[in-house]
Amino acid sequence: MQKFVNNPDFIVEDMINGYVKAHSDLIAHSERNSHVVKYKNAPVKDKVGIVTGGGSGHEPAFLGYIGENMADAVAVGEVFSSPPAQAFFDAFVEADAGKGVACLFGNYAGDNMNVKMAVMMAEDEDIEVKYVVATDDVASAPKENKEKRHGIAGGPLMWKIGGAKASKGGTLNEVIEVAKKVVDNTRSICVGLSPCVIPAVGKPNFSIEDGTMEFGVGHHGETGIKVEKLKTAKEIAEEMTHTVVKDLECPENTELVVILSGLGSTPIMELYVLYDEVYNILSQYGLKVHKALVGNYVTSLDMNGAALTIMSLDDELKELFDMPSNSPGLIIK
Amino acid sequence: MQKFVNNPDFIVEDMINGYVKAHSDLIAHSERNSHVVKYKNAPVKDKVGIVTGGGSGHEPAFLGYIGENMADAVAVGEVFSSPPAQAFFDAFVEADAGKGVACLFGNYAGDNMNVKMAVMMAEDEDIEVKYVVATDDVASAPKENKEKRHGIAGGPLMWKIGGAKASKGGTLNEVIEVAKKVVDNTRSICVGLSPCVIPAVGKPNFSIEDGTMEFGVGHHGETGIKVEKLKTAKEIAEEMTHTVVKDLECPENTELVVILSGLGSTPIMELYVLYDEVYNILSQYGLKVHKALVGNYVTSLDMNGAALTIMSLDDELKELFDMPSNSPGLIIK
Repeated sequence: MQKFVNNPDFIVEDMINGYVKAHSDLIAHSERNSHVVKYKNAPVKDKVGIVTGGGSGHEPAFLGYIGENMADAVAVGEVFSSPPAQAFFDAFVEADAGKGVACLFGNYAGDNMNVKMAVMMAEDEDIEVKYVVATDDVASAPKENKEKRHGIAGGPLMWKIGGAKASKGGTLNEVIEVAKKVVDNTRSICVGLSPCVIPAVGKPNFSIEDGTMEFGVGHHGETGIKVEKLKTAKEIAEEMTHTVVKDLECPENTELVVILSGLGSTPIMELYVLYDEVYNILSQYGLKVHKALVGNYVTSLDMNGAALTIMSLDDELKELFDMPSNSPGLIIK
Repeated sequence: MQKFVNNPDFIVEDMINGYVKAHSDLIAHSERNSHVVKYKNAPVKDKVGIVTGGGSGHEPAFLGYIGENMADAVAVGEVFSSPPAQAFFDAFVEADAGKGVACLFGNYAGDNMNVKMAVMMAEDEDIEVKYVVATDDVASAPKENKEKRHGIAGGPLMWKIGGAKASKGGTLNEVIEVAKKVVDNTRSICVGLSPCVIPAVGKPNFSIEDGTMEFGVGHHGETGIKVEKLKTAKEIAEEMTHTVVKDLECPENTELVVILSGLGSTPIMELYVLYDEVYNILSQYGLKVHKALVGNYVTSLDMNGAALTIMSLDDELKELFDMPSNSPGLIIK
């Protein structure tokens, strides 16, 4: 296992310590819970708190999106494993300034269960928490069962836009509404070229044979739509772009935010080779790219692959997306 | 070869097209040369032009550092191969606003030769060009032959700080002086855990056996200081940090910019595991981290590994580093 790791069972603790040391201008440990990281200035007076959380291995998600006009506190789970309810609850406490907390997370069974338990714990402490679940991964369920789909880069987009809404003085209900709009307007698809290795396991938890690719693979290696012969970058980009655009169904001239994220071990060069064709296909549909983010935004340990996410903008989403924000994983000037 | 690629012989063209499409708010094709990319607003009136260039495969270096208060034009070479003199010359022309051009590049034989030829071509056109060569890689030659060392992340630091100096109205000589100071104050070391695959070759151009690591490996697989048994992250971080700090020899309480860059396929999580210990060792030396950059800053295709770069700051370097700048690869707010 060619990895930078100490005891693999403590890789998450080591990573959290590294994050807080590297970005102490923005983030801090929670004194309540070693698996909670918070915005240095949280709770922010008179602001709705933004909380998220999930399993580790997706860096910079989740803790890398804490910051100014972004998430206020994050529950950090073990690798590919939901944080416990207590961690979500402690994150709520860290983020709550008396205006309530919006918990914006990805749709996975463990996270759903633990967030719901944490919301009940928060009720007992008179902290109002509402939540929105990202369901942007079109490969994970058919459109008629959209609510069963998993969340990928819909998360960072919810934190960016929900965070901006909260910073502009939005109420809890207003933040929840705009986060729901982000989910409604966002679609993602992944392609995997190689599997990933969970450090404590030491070998891949699924396989992708050389010369093949898995279209629609999940962020933890969940089975995708199909395994096929490895195609050219142009062909892959075409297939990804058609898939998300057709599922989203937005009118010509719609402006988009496009995220093309590596899955962990994908060279930056190759992401730009893909983006060249993603842009061409979007243009053929008459869609306009307002902002493109190409790099590592939501990863899967050392998986080789790429995830394409598109969000269609209206005036409100555009204004909130463009609001300056500062986090280790995303800076908007 | 599990890569997102079309014809491997045209991967650089495809990548350039992707970059320009993704970041058209900041960068543009040169109309003079398909392998030159420029700042959208270059040449910037009354400003010294900042030019760099080098082989591809190191993204976001070099073209990802074009932008506001950063590089004005970049000559883009084939994978791991210097751009021709003509490309450097065309980049000079794109960047020159009549105040001269600072060419700030990394110390590799091909780049040296081509930049010198391009400078002579520029003389014939009455464009004044001076240059500084980054020599931050301590593994590539002993300290007594420091001028023979290769350049790594010293490049982005020269573009950041030289770019800021130029934007503040610095003369060509002043920009050159501050870029030299960056080189004097910067040291880097790489560790490789796996080799990289040049797309047009299709197999690794060197080898690192599983269970081993190459301490001091170069950014193109140049032989390092030693091959040793793969150590823990803490041990690797210690060895890297001691190596750069001892070579730099800066007094206690010096403030630093620290870059911990993945080499292309290194998961973000593991970089933070390393950073945790890098920070600890720097603290033991009494050194203060002013800014930490952890992520992909200078890569080597799909090499698995990490590069640690430290730059010691004085008041001038700190002020220039902190000047807001905007490029695809680095945003300073």
